[in-house]
Amino acid sequence: MKSIGVVTPQSMHFADPLPLQSGASLSDYTLVYETYGTLNADRSNAVLVCHALNASHHVAGTYEGQPKSVGWWDNMVGPGKPLDTGRFFVIGVNNLGSCFGSTGPMHTNPATGKPYGAAFPVVTVEDWVHAQARLADRLSIRKFAAVMGGSLGGMQALAWSVLYPDRVAHCLVIASTPKLSAQNIAFNDVARQAILSDPDFHDGDFYAYGVVPKRGLRVARMVGHITYLSDDDMAEKFGRELRNADYQFGFGIDFEIESYLRYQGDKFSEYFDANTYLLITKALDYFDPARAHGGDLAAALANTQAEFLLVSFATDWRFAPERSREMVQALVKNERRVTYAEIDAPHGHDAFLLDDSRYMNVVHAYYDKVWQQLAGVVVAAQPQKEAA
Amino acid sequence: MKSIGVVTPQSMHFADPLPLQSGASLSDYTLVYETYGTLNADRSNAVLVCHALNASHHVAGTYEGQPKSVGWWDNMVGPGKPLDTGRFFVIGVNNLGSCFGSTGPMHTNPATGKPYGAAFPVVTVEDWVHAQARLADRLSIRKFAAVMGGSLGGMQALAWSVLYPDRVAHCLVIASTPKLSAQNIAFNDVARQAILSDPDFHDGDFYAYGVVPKRGLRVARMVGHITYLSDDDMAEKFGRELRNADYQFGFGIDFEIESYLRYQGDKFSEYFDANTYLLITKALDYFDPARAHGGDLAAALANTQAEFLLVSFATDWRFAPERSREMVQALVKNERRVTYAEIDAPHGHDAFLLDDSRYMNVVHAYYDKVWQQLAGVVVAAQPQKEAA
Repeated sequence: MKSIGVVTPQSMHFADPLPLQSGASLSDYTLVYETYGTLNADRSNAVLVCHALNASHHVAGTYEGQPKSVGWWDNMVGPGKPLDTGRFFVIGVNNLGSCFGSTGPMHTNPATGKPYGAAFPVVTVEDWVHAQARLADRLSIRKFAAVMGGSLGGMQALAWSVLYPDRVAHCLVIASTPKLSAQNIAFNDVARQAILSDPDFHDGDFYAYGVVPKRGLRVARMVGHITYLSDDDMAEKFGRELRNADYQFGFGIDFEIESYLRYQGDKFSEYFDANTYLLITKALDYFDPARAHGGDLAAALANTQAEFLLVSFATDWRFAPERSREMVQALVKNERRVTYAEIDAPHGHDAFLLDDSRYMNVVHAYYDKVWQQLAGVVVAAQPQKEAA
Repeated sequence: MKSIGVVTPQSMHFADPLPLQSGASLSDYTLVYETYGTLNADRSNAVLVCHALNASHHVAGTYEGQPKSVGWWDNMVGPGKPLDTGRFFVIGVNNLGSCFGSTGPMHTNPATGKPYGAAFPVVTVEDWVHAQARLADRLSIRKFAAVMGGSLGGMQALAWSVLYPDRVAHCLVIASTPKLSAQNIAFNDVARQAILSDPDFHDGDFYAYGVVPKRGLRVARMVGHITYLSDDDMAEKFGRELRNADYQFGFGIDFEIESYLRYQGDKFSEYFDANTYLLITKALDYFDPARAHGGDLAAALANTQAEFLLVSFATDWRFAPERSREMVQALVKNERRVTYAEIDAPHGHDAFLLDDSRYMNVVHAYYDKVWQQLAGVVVAAQPQKEAA
């Protein structure tokens, strides 16, 4: 299927301080974003796509002269794709604290004239959503036809439906969870400890030393990556396949899975920022909308007005289907309109990024409905206009 | 229930070189071991208990003047306990490469006069079993009433039944697997990479530098520990409980699970040897008796003569019940006598070390049978002697 083609990132500067959940604030900041498709006349066809851990605003298409720079959800977003850019005006925005363009730890702290480093404030999913809402304001988008995300992106979509209930018509929460489990937090903390204890981390101010805590990032990515894949998928892809004919009786590479994971870790440590990794795992750990309601998720979602699509994947052991069902039940308790699909895909958590016709068809069909509602509003509005 | 009380480790030196699976050999070595109970006159009541990753020969009892030095399987082994030291002569032996007494990387390499460090050869489960067999020879134990172990210890018990089929009457394989999965290997490799990339590791020769790669050991233990606990157990014990009243918005400790894991990591890094950790994870990765038989586990177990007890735990996701069932099926295919219990315990892989009356009763009942068979042999032998 056709890609959206060449796309160009844009950026917007915000001079007003952003108050954060921690009590700190960002004095000013820049958000980098991309848009695909055309905003309609009544500005009602905008869809916000929120990104997960190591992704960015670059959701679809490629950059000029860089044919390999394909957006992370290019299979989902484009002409004729489930989120059809022929119908919708799609926005991808990079979150604060990221290392892909929006203001983050690598950028200059106006208070010191040096990179923020460890001084970059801890940001939450809710902080990101508030920053995204300001971007929407500046783009004069009052209400999104849909806010959508997978994993950590799904948390942002859910938070939008809670924080800005009248600005979200549809909320698509894919492979996500209303909060991390103790085990999820444990894995995040292992990753953080690997980074924090890397001597090249220098308490987050490694930029000044001309080094990067690559060893820590590498281990962090390796352990993270294990949780993205299912046990079965790993067994099928790698099993106990050896790199060489026999065991090497050393600590180099024996098994293909070792080669794969080390490669993933090495690659990641080349481009990802260690402070960003810490910040994003904390945003994951802290997300828990039910917390302010004594743990009652239904109470937390009581003021939502959106319609919902939730999708989970059977072999996702990071954010298992049970976690999506909790959200579905809380929404049903509030008598929200909810569609839920549990896809029997073998690819673990990563399935939300991969092609699976059942998954793609569910999302496609859901956006057909979103589109028909939008069109219906327009059609219904015309007689009203004539009557006025 | 009563403990065996004060116990004393012993050691035995072996001057004959031990050929290893890798092709290397250990020129001479010492094994440290403990024994509990009394060897009977026909030397038929000996039970060998094999240890797992971070355990040792200190299976039961305490050391003189150290009331907290309780053996790692003290709930299983002792007077009136499932493995009753009133009936059986129990041997716990520390494996080669360990850091608890038997010859390992911290000991002097006779070839160089310096600590082995990285020069200590990679040893396998099969190598350990051959070393244990030599110890049995020296103790004049021709045939064990039982060889028993949990996790990596279970692999040794299984290997005994294959390598020395006529020397094992009963084989007890608890919470184990006939081989690691790709995911198991992946977790081990994350742990190894954390150690290998710690600047204080110095390619395994850190002893000479007066340092210990504690950062790597700490992360290795943290990630390992996650795999020992079940998701549910972690949720029940820690959930999202906070250390303080609110989020700290930093990278210190927010959640109790972080505190627990970091503590486990810190403690481990104080006493465990980094080279030993590497060696033991490799022994785990390499264990695969079916490998020499084209992956056919039944063929690998065809020459076994023992009777078997296998136990698995429902929430063990490290070595899940499916892995025990593979062994059961392979043994049944060979028409071996197999008892199999799947215990619905909530404690994940760690359950094999914990008290659970169903689990303890199964093992106790099994040893009753072992004892009755022994007694039966003695009783049956008496008329034969009279007839002779």
